Formats: sequence, C-alpha cells, structure tokens
Amino acid sequence: MWERSLVLSAPGKVILHGEHAVVHGKVALAVALNLRTFLRLRPCDDSRVCIHLPGVSVRRSWDISCLQDLQKGFTADFDESKSPSVEQLDTLREFAGIAAGATAPESLATLAFLYMCLAISAKYGDVPSVDILVWSELPTGAGLGSSAAYAVCLAAALLTACGAISCPLKDGESTARWTEEELTLINSWAFQGERVIHGNPSGVDNAVGTWGGALRYQSGKITPLKRVPTLRILLTNTKVPRSTKVLVAGVKEKILKFPAIMNPVLDSIDAISQECQSVLEAMPANPSPEYYPVLEELFDINQHQLNVIGVGHPSLDRLCRVTASHGLHSKLTGAGGGGCGITLLRPDTSPLAVEAAKRDLCACGFECWETNIGAPGVTLHSSSSLDAEVLQALSQS
Amino acid sequence: MWERSLVLSAPGKVILHGEHAVVHGKVALAVALNLRTFLRLRPCDDSRVCIHLPGVSVRRSWDISCLQDLQKGFTADFDESKSPSVEQLDTLREFAGIAAGATAPESLATLAFLYMCLAISAKYGDVPSVDILVWSELPTGAGLGSSAAYAVCLAAALLTACGAISCPLKDGESTARWTEEELTLINSWAFQGERVIHGNPSGVDNAVGTWGGALRYQSGKITPLKRVPTLRILLTNTKVPRSTKVLVAGVKEKILKFPAIMNPVLDSIDAISQECQSVLEAMPANPSPEYYPVLEELFDINQHQLNVIGVGHPSLDRLCRVTASHGLHSKLTGAGGGGCGITLLRPDTSPLAVEAAKRDLCACGFECWETNIGAPGVTLHSSSSLDAEVLQALSQS
Repeated sequence: MWERSLVLSAPGKVILHGEHAVVHGKVALAVALNLRTFLRLRPCDDSRVCIHLPGVSVRRSWDISCLQDLQKGFTADFDESKSPSVEQLDTLREFAGIAAGATAPESLATLAFLYMCLAISAKYGDVPSVDILVWSELPTGAGLGSSAAYAVCLAAALLTACGAISCPLKDGESTARWTEEELTLINSWAFQGERVIHGNPSGVDNAVGTWGGALRYQSGKITPLKRVPTLRILLTNTKVPRSTKVLVAGVKEKILKFPAIMNPVLDSIDAISQECQSVLEAMPANPSPEYYPVLEELFDINQHQLNVIGVGHPSLDRLCRVTASHGLHSKLTGAGGGGCGITLLRPDTSPLAVEAAKRDLCACGFECWETNIGAPGVTLHSSSSLDAEVLQALSQS
Repeated sequence: MWERSLVLSAPGKVILHGEHAVVHGKVALAVALNLRTFLRLRPCDDSRVCIHLPGVSVRRSWDISCLQDLQKGFTADFDESKSPSVEQLDTLREFAGIAAGATAPESLATLAFLYMCLAISAKYGDVPSVDILVWSELPTGAGLGSSAAYAVCLAAALLTACGAISCPLKDGESTARWTEEELTLINSWAFQGERVIHGNPSGVDNAVGTWGGALRYQSGKITPLKRVPTLRILLTNTKVPRSTKVLVAGVKEKILKFPAIMNPVLDSIDAISQECQSVLEAMPANPSPEYYPVLEELFDINQHQLNVIGVGHPSLDRLCRVTASHGLHSKLTGAGGGGCGITLLRPDTSPLAVEAAKRDLCACGFECWETNIGAPGVTLHSSSSLDAEVLQALSQS
C-alpha cells in the first residue's frame, strides 16, 4: 500500500509560432506555460480509489476489488505503446455510467482516470489505494493543454504509486523532478490519457507537460529544445468561442484556392519558427537584452501572417492594439478566430506597465494572467513550497 | 498660331497590388484613378505663353521672344529619349527665378512646364502663343500620380498646339482620344516632365495617365492590361504624413534582417498581383458577380502582407476596420505608413452603405472620394460634356 502524500504539477502549453502551418508540414514551437495543474495524492486506508476534480465537479470512488475484477475481464493488454481499445473504453464507460459518445470534460476526465489507473496497475503492480485530487490554474477548452497537464499529472502520480518510477523528492527539498527515463515513461502514459480524451492527439501537449521548456514539432516529430530561457508573458483569453476544426478547414480551403499566394506564407511562418528557435537557444548562454526586440518583431510578423491565412479575429486585433498602446507585442496562440493571445514582457517591463495593460485588457471583457513560458515540466513539490492559493485548493477534502 | 480652345484631362493612379514588392523585382498592378487633372488651353493673342495653376498658386507668363532666345542658347538637344540635362534645368531655374534645389510643388510645376514647352516647341515647331490653366481633382503629394497627370496633360496640350499630334475631337462629340502612336508620343514627353519633377521616376504614373485602364509593372517593364473593367471604389486619404523613402528603406532592412521570412512574403505578394491581373482580364468578357469576392479577398490578404513587411499604420488599420463594419474591403495603396487607402465597392453596393462608410471615414478625420478605377487615359473633352464643378474651376481667368 502506498503510504506517502505527494503533490505534483504539470504545466500547460502555448504555441509560440507555427500554429496552423504545422498542419501543412511546417515547424511549430510549443512552450510550457506556467499555469499549472496540481495533483495531490494521499494514501487511502479503506481499499478504495478516489478521484476528486473540483474544477469539473467530479467526485468518484470505487472499491479496489471492483476495479481488479474489471481489470481481469479485459482480453486485450494494457500497454503504453498501443492505443486504448474500443472494447476497453466501452467497458470502462459502462462501469462508470458514462454514455457512449459523451464529450463533456467531466466524462472524459473520469474515463481517462479509470483507463490510466487500470492500465498502469495492470502493468506495474496492484491497483493502489489512493485518494487523488486535481486542481488547475488553466482554463479548460482554451487550447492551453489542460487535458494533457491532467494526463501528465495522473501518469506521474499513478506510476509513482505503483512503484514503476521513483519518488525523487527528498526531505527538505522544495521541488524535484524525475530522471529522463522516468519522464519518458510518464510521457508515454500521459499520451495514453490524451488518446482517451482526444482520440488522435499529436502528443505535443503531453510532451510539453512532461518535459517543460520548449519543443519543436514537425510532421509528427517532437524535438525538445536543449536550453530555453524563461520568458515573462501575459496570457489573455478573449473568451470568443471558436471551432478549431472550422478554422483548420478554412486555412486548407484558402491554400487550395490560392496556392501560389498561400504556400509562400506557410514557408514564411516556418522560417519564423526556425528563427525563433535559434534566438531561444542562443538566449540562455548570452542573456543579452538585444534578443527581446527580435522576439517582439517575430510576434508582430507572425500575427500578421495569421491574419493573412484567415485565422484572425477582431477581438485579437483589439488585444494587439491594446497591448501595443502599452509598448507590448502580442500574437494569437493556437487556433485563432478568438481564443487566446500571448503578450511578450521584457525582463525590465515595469509592473506598472503590466498592470495598466492587464486593466485595459480586462476592460475589453478579456481574462488575463501574468505568467511565464519555458516553465519546468512535471514536478514534485513539498507542501511548504506551494503558494497559498494552491495550498488552499488542494486542502479540499 | 494656335486658334482653338481645348479641354483635356488625365487620370491619377493608384497601386492596386504590389507596392513595395515592386522595388524587389515583383509585379505591381497600377490602375487609372478617375480623379482627374484638367487642362484648358486657349489661344493667346499677344505673343505670350501663360500658365495658371490655381491649386499651387502659380500664375506666370512670358514673352514668346524671350522663350525663343532662351531656347537658342541651349547647346544640348531637347529630345524625349534623353533626360533633361543639368545645364538645361539650371538655365531654366535661373530664367524663372527658382532657387537651386527648390522642391516646392509650385517650383517644380513651373520648371516642368518651361522645360516641356521649350523642348516640344524646339522639336516640333515654334513656341505656341497659348494660355494654359491646369486644375486637378487629385490631392498632391498623396502618391496618386498628380504630377504625372499634370505632365500628361501638358504633353498632350503642347504637342497638339505645336501640331505634332492631331486634335481628334470632332464637333458634336463629347470626348475623344488620340491614336496609339500619338499616345506613345504623349507618354514619352510626359515622362520628361516627370523626370524634371522627380529626377528618376519609374514611368508607371505617366503611362497610367496616358493609357488609363490598368498596367503591369515589373523590373522596369510596363505592360498595359488588354481589357479591364471599371471598378467602383472609395479612395480615402488618412492625411497621416509619411516618407516613402523611409518606408522603402524599412522594408529593405527587414528583408536583410529576416531573408527567409521576408522573401516568401514578396513571392506571395507577387502571386496576389498575378491572380488579380487574371481576374481583371477575365471580368470584361464575363461580368459575373463571382469575381468581386475574389477581388475583396485579395485586398484583405495583401493588406495583411503589407502589415507583415512593416508598412502599415494604425490609421490604415482603422480605415480597414471602419469599412469592414460596412461589409467593405480595403487596403493601403502606395507607400503606406499612413497616406491613402482604397476600398472596393461592388456594382450593387447600395448608395446608403457607401454614404454611411464615407460618413464614418470622415468622422475619423480622413478625406474620402467616391470614384472608380480602370478609368480612361488622357482624353479631350467638349465643354458641354464637363460637369459643373470642372467647368467652374476651368472658367477662372
């Protein structure tokens, strides 16, 4: 039986450059967003498994013996290299009372938890008697990788509780991370969770949640950047709803309609991602302020290119205009057509300027967070190292 | 002695697509703007040459004998194939009391008139005794080809008065145009006038003023489009002053800084010009309404690309936003960084919508004209065919 309490967290993600172009084989840069999902794991002494997700109003618990019986009934293996089977997921849905085809976050989160719990314990040991609470700073459905951060946290917690990976946090340390090998295993299982939730995810979001920092993604290949700086940003949610599917289809249609006009735009965006990668990799060794104007200019150029391919929105234009009036540079991030924008802050951008920009953005009806990108991936925390808001959120019973 | 009164006009020009990219060897499309410069020529019975330019407060007259003496003093030939020589221009400046290096419109307009008058009469006959008044609907210094329209009008009037070309307007006709051969001569001499005013002009503006319609310009080669439709537009002057030289230098700097990002943008703009040319050439034979959404989309795309290369301006963003709120599509035209924007109107855009858009644009402090593009080039007019405003302007003595 698992006897230790743990707190761990994983970051969200934003696309820095290359959204949409990545669909057409170009490079995208994804970076870890330091709005984090936290997981508290406690031992549970009544042979039950409990999951509590206050953000989506889920509180479920099951007898371990029921889960073990369920596990034995599966004919297919659980393996991190194979997609969850339709039969497995149908059985789990029936067990949990989730309707076929249900796509509500609470249904998918419950299903992913059940799948990961059974699969990991089937492979690495018994179903652990644990009480898990997950709470997030990330808004859901905003393209910020909240489901991946959830899956990464679950994978890390369940693998630790089953003894598949170590618990690297030593007494007296405030934070600790796993080894590369252990992170690879966490990432594989987090990807399984993402598959349960999204069907056919790219794997970028869970990779960012696991490794943090920044990574390059092109044609299915994910390459973490070696060293990246932590950059201050504002993340703004315009709260304008949009359909990623419709936006992606619109870009494809534009490319088919005007190939000679649009293909060079994709090449230009590809070059923006590559230029940005060079700058990010050069920054840690040489933290010169001269890099910031380049990053800002790349933001401006890419924002205009995203307007060229038709994924802008008046709300995003407004976001850019408002931040420009404070000398700050912004671009949309993710699908566009509303959704979120990211604003670069320099190390010396004054708190007053940031507060003024946030105030003006909120006055537009937007929601705004001051945070940073290039944040660490999945991390164990001592309770004493957590800030008050997180501690309070995790103290819910 | 010339014994007939004439009224003729030449259109201004706007760049439809390809501004800035044309500096880097890409295609630009220039179109005739139906804001016109009018010239009234009257015989003058006291052996003098008079020029009256009320728009720039010029009213000068010279004895023909003085001009003939001046003409005889030149050692270099006057020829439409050779640039005006420094010596010729210095002599003319001294004669007219214009300071060396003077760049005020009134100085350059006077100098161009004197040069063209002496050069054309030296080549084709005596200095004619004429009284010339020029009045324009075009704002000056707004990149709308006002100097070229002036030079085209002067060339056509002086060549006609010297007998170098015919006077094709027959009694009872409201308008008439010259033959291709005569237009070629008018264009050559208008280019000389442009050289006096601008030093090293591209020749695009005078070609548009002469031939009207639309033309393609690339790497010094000017090709008139065969058939083009007349398109309704709004032309809006943001009245934000800008330096073309600084803007062109800024684009060059961006290309040198980010070649892999910027060169594809120039290719994309080149493709926009070519796509637009295809659409314009297809329209007269098949006047289907389906072409307008394509023209509008090309406007939107190019406007965003012009922002990518850094020649946008908040005033132009505002212009686009205001017209978009009326369902209309706009782009900057010319140098950008302020200056003018052009808004496409469909044949069926209602007068109410146009009036509402104009009202909102004027409320921004902009100046706005409803006119059209693809207008005829240099044209002779009967007095009875002129509208009241033009007649009144030309009735100044």
